[in-house]
Amino acid sequence: MTGTILALAGGVGGAKLARGLAGVLDPGRLTVAVNTGDDFEHMGLPISPDLDTVMYTLAGRANPDTGWGVAGETWSFMEAVEDLGGDTWFRLGDRDLATHVLRRRMLDRGKTLSEATDALAGALGIRHRIVPMSDRPVRTVVETDEGTLPFQDYFVRRRCEPRSLTFRFENIDSVDPSPGLAAALADPELDAVVVCPSNPYVSVAPILGIPAVAGFIEARKVPVVAVSPIVGGRAIKGPAAKMMAELGAETSALGIATHYGARIDGLVIDEVDAALAPDIEASGMAAHVARTVMRNEEDSRDLALETLAFAAGLR
Amino acid sequence: MTGTILALAGGVGGAKLARGLAGVLDPGRLTVAVNTGDDFEHMGLPISPDLDTVMYTLAGRANPDTGWGVAGETWSFMEAVEDLGGDTWFRLGDRDLATHVLRRRMLDRGKTLSEATDALAGALGIRHRIVPMSDRPVRTVVETDEGTLPFQDYFVRRRCEPRSLTFRFENIDSVDPSPGLAAALADPELDAVVVCPSNPYVSVAPILGIPAVAGFIEARKVPVVAVSPIVGGRAIKGPAAKMMAELGAETSALGIATHYGARIDGLVIDEVDAALAPDIEASGMAAHVARTVMRNEEDSRDLALETLAFAAGLR
Repeated sequence: MTGTILALAGGVGGAKLARGLAGVLDPGRLTVAVNTGDDFEHMGLPISPDLDTVMYTLAGRANPDTGWGVAGETWSFMEAVEDLGGDTWFRLGDRDLATHVLRRRMLDRGKTLSEATDALAGALGIRHRIVPMSDRPVRTVVETDEGTLPFQDYFVRRRCEPRSLTFRFENIDSVDPSPGLAAALADPELDAVVVCPSNPYVSVAPILGIPAVAGFIEARKVPVVAVSPIVGGRAIKGPAAKMMAELGAETSALGIATHYGARIDGLVIDEVDAALAPDIEASGMAAHVARTVMRNEEDSRDLALETLAFAAGLR
Repeated sequence: MTGTILALAGGVGGAKLARGLAGVLDPGRLTVAVNTGDDFEHMGLPISPDLDTVMYTLAGRANPDTGWGVAGETWSFMEAVEDLGGDTWFRLGDRDLATHVLRRRMLDRGKTLSEATDALAGALGIRHRIVPMSDRPVRTVVETDEGTLPFQDYFVRRRCEPRSLTFRFENIDSVDPSPGLAAALADPELDAVVVCPSNPYVSVAPILGIPAVAGFIEARKVPVVAVSPIVGGRAIKGPAAKMMAELGAETSALGIATHYGARIDGLVIDEVDAALAPDIEASGMAAHVARTVMRNEEDSRDLALETLAFAAGLR
């Protein structure tokens, strides 16, 4: 393949594969379209957790300990907020705050989220294209056994404790993809779409739920391959496995295959799940076994190459 | 005197005397009305330098080294802003930022600057009343030999280097005092007004320029006493002496007396300026010699007591 690749990504796992793809593809050949369903306004600041995780990860600045935020972070701001009696349930680090304050300013001056992301990513030295899935707000809402919760209330404040019944993406039916995502979908050179190993319910579903994306997937002329975020029946990070169980899905790579169904042409699964390959293939898609746990940048690049080769074979 | 005291204050020097007054007066007896002409919006955040200096000083949290900001400050946010190519000429510390972010949020939710100040000061444990001079924006503009500059551009970005020709306070003729300042002026128990040793041109002039304040001063029934910010011909801190020279005033406590003129009934001058007392009294006001350089909280309380006793003698 010598054309372009569109990666769909959420937070940590998605960011790691995106970094791998960026490590093996020239800047002009990769667009990473990122979930913004988790975005929210906090303390008057526009927070885009997945965009920032992808951005920090591609810039080599992600905090390896937390899975979110910036390496070498300090917390004086939060301490002072606590002193002043402000909200502390969503923690904003001092360095991370610069991103949100500068983003607020750009949005206030009429820039789109895409333009703000371009400016921030550019300032961090990122040459590959990172775009929000849409410049219009799509807000993920979780219907739980304790009522309806905005995503970050469910995810951070309540630590995913309430049982999730369903996820809704407000406005999703009326939003367009961002210009960068639309351009990637329309690119005649597009070779494949890679669904990164992000949470299928809350990270990937909003992107696939944008009507123009759903339409593209349905009528696609290029392979769409996903990398399973479930390894050995567990999520590498985050609540994907808990959600699968609560939503009645099988908590396995096969469950991921069933979830995506006809929307993907192939699934990359981990070596520990190799035995599931025949069942996945029986469900009507290709399966490819690889080492999917990305412990460092080299792992990310290796998985990117495996995934791209797998996609190429499906063309 | 057993009634109430209204102190008019700008930044550092004003804050120190305000702290002294707070140390010797019960909370119900003191209102500190603070200059907001220096206020501006930076990075989308509402910055109130003098209000914050007074607040941090009364809370015992002021940074003793810089004269602005909070003790134990850290600078990760500014480093990250610099990395991202943002403005760094006005430095916002990580802890200080909490004040601005929380203030932004309160103002966005429809609170007044007075209400936001009450909430922040209350959270810092301050029991004396700190109020902005007005809830309406008054913006200080400096006419210089290099053109018209917004105050912070002149003061911080250009370090007061351009020669100042005149200071203007935009909107001053149309603003009301804040409710707290209006209440202090109307209080039948008011015993005296203390003009703190702040810059007369850019800190005190905006407060005295509010029509209702000017009217009160003109028709006053209680003494107004000032403490000279000029000691031995020099300003303790800041550009007051430079401004006096540029504006053609005598750079001395006598120059301060001449500047305030009939607007004050008495001037507290430093021991080193004791020889100027006769000339000041010849100009038609009382003079009182005291130790005016406040090196610590005890100095502040001593000067507060001296100033209050002086005012009491003028009733």
